[in-house]
Amino acid sequence: MPTLVLIRHGQSAWNLENRFTGWWDVDVTEQGAAEARAAGELMAAKGLDFDLTFTSLQTRAIKTLNLALEAMGRLWLPTEKHWRLNERHYGGLTGLNKAETAARHGDEQVHVWRRSFDIPPPVQEAGSEFDLSGDRRYAGIPIPQTESLKDTIARVLPYWDERIAPALKDGQRVLISAHGNSLRALVKHLSHIPDDEITGLEIPTGQPIVYELDDQLNATDRYYLSER
Amino acid sequence: MPTLVLIRHGQSAWNLENRFTGWWDVDVTEQGAAEARAAGELMAAKGLDFDLTFTSLQTRAIKTLNLALEAMGRLWLPTEKHWRLNERHYGGLTGLNKAETAARHGDEQVHVWRRSFDIPPPVQEAGSEFDLSGDRRYAGIPIPQTESLKDTIARVLPYWDERIAPALKDGQRVLISAHGNSLRALVKHLSHIPDDEITGLEIPTGQPIVYELDDQLNATDRYYLSER
Repeated sequence: MPTLVLIRHGQSAWNLENRFTGWWDVDVTEQGAAEARAAGELMAAKGLDFDLTFTSLQTRAIKTLNLALEAMGRLWLPTEKHWRLNERHYGGLTGLNKAETAARHGDEQVHVWRRSFDIPPPVQEAGSEFDLSGDRRYAGIPIPQTESLKDTIARVLPYWDERIAPALKDGQRVLISAHGNSLRALVKHLSHIPDDEITGLEIPTGQPIVYELDDQLNATDRYYLSER
Repeated sequence: MPTLVLIRHGQSAWNLENRFTGWWDVDVTEQGAAEARAAGELMAAKGLDFDLTFTSLQTRAIKTLNLALEAMGRLWLPTEKHWRLNERHYGGLTGLNKAETAARHGDEQVHVWRRSFDIPPPVQEAGSEFDLSGDRRYAGIPIPQTESLKDTIARVLPYWDERIAPALKDGQRVLISAHGNSLRALVKHLSHIPDDEITGLEIPTGQPIVYELDDQLNATDRYYLSER
């Protein structure tokens, strides 16, 4: 039976400051690093093991993976890093904290952007300090200007189909370290969660989520490892 | 012009205790981790950058790579980990410190094993606590029973030819984090160092070694980055 575990990166500096982060490359905090190590220790204690690991191009997810793998004695496992596992791109909200955003756009509008399935925030203003077009890691990659959750799902799933699902079907045990919304994309897909429910599904940081899958990769169970 | 940088892992716990390590998976010390971060900071300060990174299956080399990449803001670079970049396998000497080895085998014999090109140490005794045959990371891999430097070179170079040299010829800038003897293999190959000289060439921990190569990957210069 295929093994799949999802983990959202440990607390980041901007999680703590309550700022929209998206594709901006913010590091984990000390607490976030501790969450990652604890996740690795928990997985090892529960007898979970892996053959292949995936993560995004963002430091907070990569470090979470590395710290968890180190705690498991599995730093030697292969890792594939891909932009399609990046966080949802928050466009012009990137870098704003929730209070600033509410002051600028109104509480109701902020709620719409955070909780609607298919309404993206405004695009970044020209010359934004959070513009990533000069970031070498994204050379040749279609950096979104902004994304709804629907947009995020649309660019995550091809990577699932092309790289992750085949590995699972091939019997490889897979660990994915990614972000709140790129993981929502996978959870929606695997657990058939409706559009209007997925936006409210909170994925806690640093908590391994275990999927039990059948041979066709249909989810037969999903649970937090800490609860078993 | 292709860019190639080699780095030997930062100080390990057994470097400090003067014990033969080989394939045994010993972590870096705090000093070793600091060496790795300093190497990354130096590479960034000198304007070096990479497209592809390689390391062994051993924690001390992987962590050195990760810490250096993190210091460079390059944790997102692809990394390929392979057993052919592992340290020389010291067979029955694994785990012994230099004094114990000398007491057991005599100073002269130890000197021969350390400094000869093609004489391997004795193989591990059956039931050795340092036996790796049960280590999952080496499943399907021909774990050496012991290796001379010549043996090490013979298993490193096919990987150079198959994976690293083609990437360099393709214009990718390459960073390799590995071990004293797997790096000796590459230095011998690139700098045409004779058999009787390579065993005396010391590769310091945590010091980026820069190769300037022509299009055919002939070395035109080799230097410690800290000296330029």
